[in-house]
Formats: sequence, structure tokens, C-alpha cells
Amino acid sequence: MYDVIIAGTGPAGLTAAIYGTRARLKMLVFEENYMSGGQVVNTYEVDNYPGLPEISGMDLSLKFREHAEKLGAEFVRAKVNKIEVKEDGTKIVETESGTYETRAFVLATGAHHRLLNVPGEESLSGMGVSYCATCDGAFYKGSDVAVIGGGDVAVEDAIFLARGCRRVYVVHRRDELRAAKSLQEKLFSLPNVEMVWDSVVDSIEGEEQVDAIRIKNIKDGTVRAISVDGVFVAVGITPDSDLLKGIVKMDEGGYILADESCRTSVPGIFSAGDVRKKPLRQIITAAADGANAITSVEKYLIEA
Amino acid sequence: MYDVIIAGTGPAGLTAAIYGTRARLKMLVFEENYMSGGQVVNTYEVDNYPGLPEISGMDLSLKFREHAEKLGAEFVRAKVNKIEVKEDGTKIVETESGTYETRAFVLATGAHHRLLNVPGEESLSGMGVSYCATCDGAFYKGSDVAVIGGGDVAVEDAIFLARGCRRVYVVHRRDELRAAKSLQEKLFSLPNVEMVWDSVVDSIEGEEQVDAIRIKNIKDGTVRAISVDGVFVAVGITPDSDLLKGIVKMDEGGYILADESCRTSVPGIFSAGDVRKKPLRQIITAAADGANAITSVEKYLIEA
Repeated sequence: MYDVIIAGTGPAGLTAAIYGTRARLKMLVFEENYMSGGQVVNTYEVDNYPGLPEISGMDLSLKFREHAEKLGAEFVRAKVNKIEVKEDGTKIVETESGTYETRAFVLATGAHHRLLNVPGEESLSGMGVSYCATCDGAFYKGSDVAVIGGGDVAVEDAIFLARGCRRVYVVHRRDELRAAKSLQEKLFSLPNVEMVWDSVVDSIEGEEQVDAIRIKNIKDGTVRAISVDGVFVAVGITPDSDLLKGIVKMDEGGYILADESCRTSVPGIFSAGDVRKKPLRQIITAAADGANAITSVEKYLIEA
Repeated sequence: MYDVIIAGTGPAGLTAAIYGTRARLKMLVFEENYMSGGQVVNTYEVDNYPGLPEISGMDLSLKFREHAEKLGAEFVRAKVNKIEVKEDGTKIVETESGTYETRAFVLATGAHHRLLNVPGEESLSGMGVSYCATCDGAFYKGSDVAVIGGGDVAVEDAIFLARGCRRVYVVHRRDELRAAKSLQEKLFSLPNVEMVWDSVVDSIEGEEQVDAIRIKNIKDGTVRAISVDGVFVAVGITPDSDLLKGIVKMDEGGYILADESCRTSVPGIFSAGDVRKKPLRQIITAAADGANAITSVEKYLIEA
């Protein structure tokens, strides 16, 4: 019987691992992906994690992971398939590497990128359609590409791509961006960026590779094609909360309802990081969740 | 007229400074002390700030400060004396270096631990005398330590320390604890915890490190020494919230009432870090507050 099992190794899960080892809890950390870091690992540069300016997402992820390992956290590379809560409060955690019993469980599985759900998107995924400019941008040096979206990530992607691409179209459904002012200023200063306002993607065209996107202006209904070799989709994220569906309370978007202390509606189940309904999703706030979750776990273990 | 003025340069204030510069806000950061870092600067070693293991509190504080400076944050070394809110919402900030007007204000002045005020306490602070078991407890694995206090925090600290330490003495001035019953039950069930009732600390002994505490029984006046390597003082903390007294809502302990988004009861005034009523006071949660506060400031500036 474990004190706590953590699912997920982004900043929230790894910080929970750090706090859990320091609290000497009997703990396992499940990691589904080959690399730790969650969404951070795909970030070209992070400059807002206090104390570590201008660091690559990969390096920051490694630092978190190494910190947890140094303290003795035990990781298992396996997918968690199912959680069940027994009448006495014990949680049964079914994984690819076997079934475990634990008193407390922390879901820190994060979130993933949302799809456009238009013709051509799925069939051309990896053939010109990408959800990670940092990962794939380098393949489009000298090419024309489009970024879809208007938030921080979309604008960061466009700025990044503009360094190597010939032309970057930013397609956004509104007539202004949601992104931070500093990012907007930078974006608008770039000579090879073209804004496509009030527009949505109708379809992505191409045989074996992306050739073009068909863009619909939502104000006048006109449709036009733009020739591009790459489409970078940055239209938001979906929480990876399926494991707790039907077990804990969530909002309509699938975010788990838990306050700052990370307690869900079920005693002994906690949620930390991007998967939780919260005002701001950043590395630093995910990490804070990890600390809060373990502190709540400790209180639960005493009270239960 | 500034967009935002920040008071305090611990992890909360410095993270707010980092986020504020990135958001291109017109901002000033007021720092009362000669060193940034708040309580962190006096911490011998920090091992729970993810990504920067085994760092001195001084070095971590410098890294935060340098990060904010690199991004262009403007610091003023002056005490903030008074805040006033005008009818139109403008905040008048009176300081040692003059009076400033700002649309938003972030109080990040932190808190300070109550002292025992006994010989040896100040000179051995950081050399065996600690005010945070969660922060420093891991350094005392296998050692004998004492916890001073009888409230929830003292008992939680003792339970936490008992997992790794050889023996934990809990020194309390009364013959019963104030802590929650569930915590008391857990504490009394631990074989390596010894209660020292009706007793106060007379002095803390040691040359360069803590060797022992001298304990006085307040009922019979006897004094005895107990050999320990660490003394965890948990007799309460006091938030440094005087600036906003009578302006925003606080609890009976002087903590500012604000949720995770750091909004206080007055529009345009935000509180971040240890001065805020919150479930867990750690470097990582203070830093998260700084990010949340600035995000809320940005929303306020757009909405107001």
C-alpha cells in the first residue's frame, strides 16, 4: 500500500515528486511519455520561470526531473489505465505495469493541444500539419507557413517561425489578439508576418504534403486559398482528465474542480497543474500546485 | 501614473516584477531591505525550489533578482509608508522617496516568524535554528531535533520531522496542545516523538551549530538540557500587512483575504505571497502568486 501515487511528470507532477520525497511518503510517480516535462519539453525557450532565465523547455524539464531523482523519487514508465475507489477509501490504480494500491492519488496529467477539426487536418498531420512550432519549425526554413490562433502560444510560435520562414500568416478568428502586449508588439514589428483577421480555416489542402489552406472570412463569408507548406495549429488546450471522469467533479471543459489546495470532490484524490480548473496555467503555477497537492495529501493521510 | 506598483521583493514580488516587465507594464518595485529575497535570503539551504536543488537562500534570491533586472524591472530602495485610494480608483503610494500614483498596487511584503527571543536564537539562526520544517527538515535525517510550539503547525512539523529524524522533542508551555485532535492522535502514536510539557526554551546552545536547548519547566522551575541538532520554532507567524490595514479585508490574524487570483476586496489592489491568506507558504507558492497577481493586474487594467 502506497501513501500516494502521482500520475504525470510535467512541472506539477515533478514538483509533487520533490515534495513527496522530502515528506518521506511511500510514493510512486507514473510517467506515460518517454520524456518528462509535459508541454514544457516542447517549448523552445522559457523566460518566465523565476531564477532560470532564457532556458530551453527541454533543459528546464531535465532540471526538474533530475531534482526529483536526486531526492530519491521512484518513477515508473507506464500508462495509468484506470482508477477505482474502494469503500474504505483505498485507491486501486491499474497501469500498464500492474495494479497498485494507494491511500492518496494525485492526477497531474496536464493538457494537450486542441484540434481544428477540419478536412485535411488529420490526414496531413505530420505532413505539414503540426501542433509544435518548436519541434517542427526548423523543417520549414525558407517556406511559407500559417499559424492558427491568437493567444500567447500562437504569437510565440509565429515569432519563432518568422526567424526561419519566408512568410508567416497568422490566422485568427477575431480582429484582435488575446496574446500579451509585449508579444503583440514583437509580432507586429516583424516584416515577414501577415495577419489574417476575422478568419477561420475551412480545410487544409494537399496530396501527400500540405499545399495550401482554405480560409473563410467570418464577417463577409468569402473563402480564399493561401499557399503554405506548413500549418501550425495553436488554438488552445484540452485537459487530460479522462482517468477521473465519472469519479470527481469537473467543469464542462473537462477541467477538474479543485481549489488552490488541489483537493477534488473525492477525499484522497488531488489534481495539480493544467488539468485543474485555475486562473493561470504557467510552469510556476503548475509547480506550486505540486507543492500544494502533497501538503494536502499529508493532511489527508493524517485525518483519514 | 504607473500601471502597477509592487511593494516587496521576496519570491512573490520578484516574480510579479518578472511577469510585469514581460507584460510591458509601466511599473515600479519598492524594496525596503538592502537585500532582495524576503525570508528566503536568511535560509541556509533551499532544496525544494524545483530545478535549483541545494541552493543557498542568498543565491536563490540573487537569481530571482537578476532575472527581474535582466528583463528591465525598475527597483526603488525605499519603504512604502502609506496607501490611499482616490475616488476614481487611483492609488496614491507615499514612500520614503516621494509620492507616486498608480492604477494598480500589489502588496508582497510577506510575513515574519515570531521569535522565541532567547539567547542563541538569533546567532544560530540558519545554523540549526529554523522556522520552517517543510523547508529545512530534510537536512536533519537521522538527527535529534526539537519543535517548539503546540498549535497545528508545530504538530504538523513534528509529524513531518518524525518520518526522517531519529527523535523529535515537542516543547510546549502548557500541558495540552492547541492543535487539531486528529493531528494530536497521529503525533502521540509516533514512537520517536517525546512530549516536553509545561516547558519553555531558556536558551539555545552551540558554537557554530546548535548542540542543545536548555528547557525550563514552568511549574517546578527546573532547568535541563536536551541534546539536539535542530530547533524548529513554530510559535506562529505575523503577516506584514499593516500598509493595507483598514483598506482591504483581512482575517483576525492580519492575513489579507484574496483568492488564488490575488484580488483583494478593493479593485486594483492585489496581495501576493505570505501576506495573503492561503493554504501553503513556500517559495514556489509565493512565486506562483506573483504570476497570478500580474495576470489579474493586466485584466484589471483592461477592465477598469
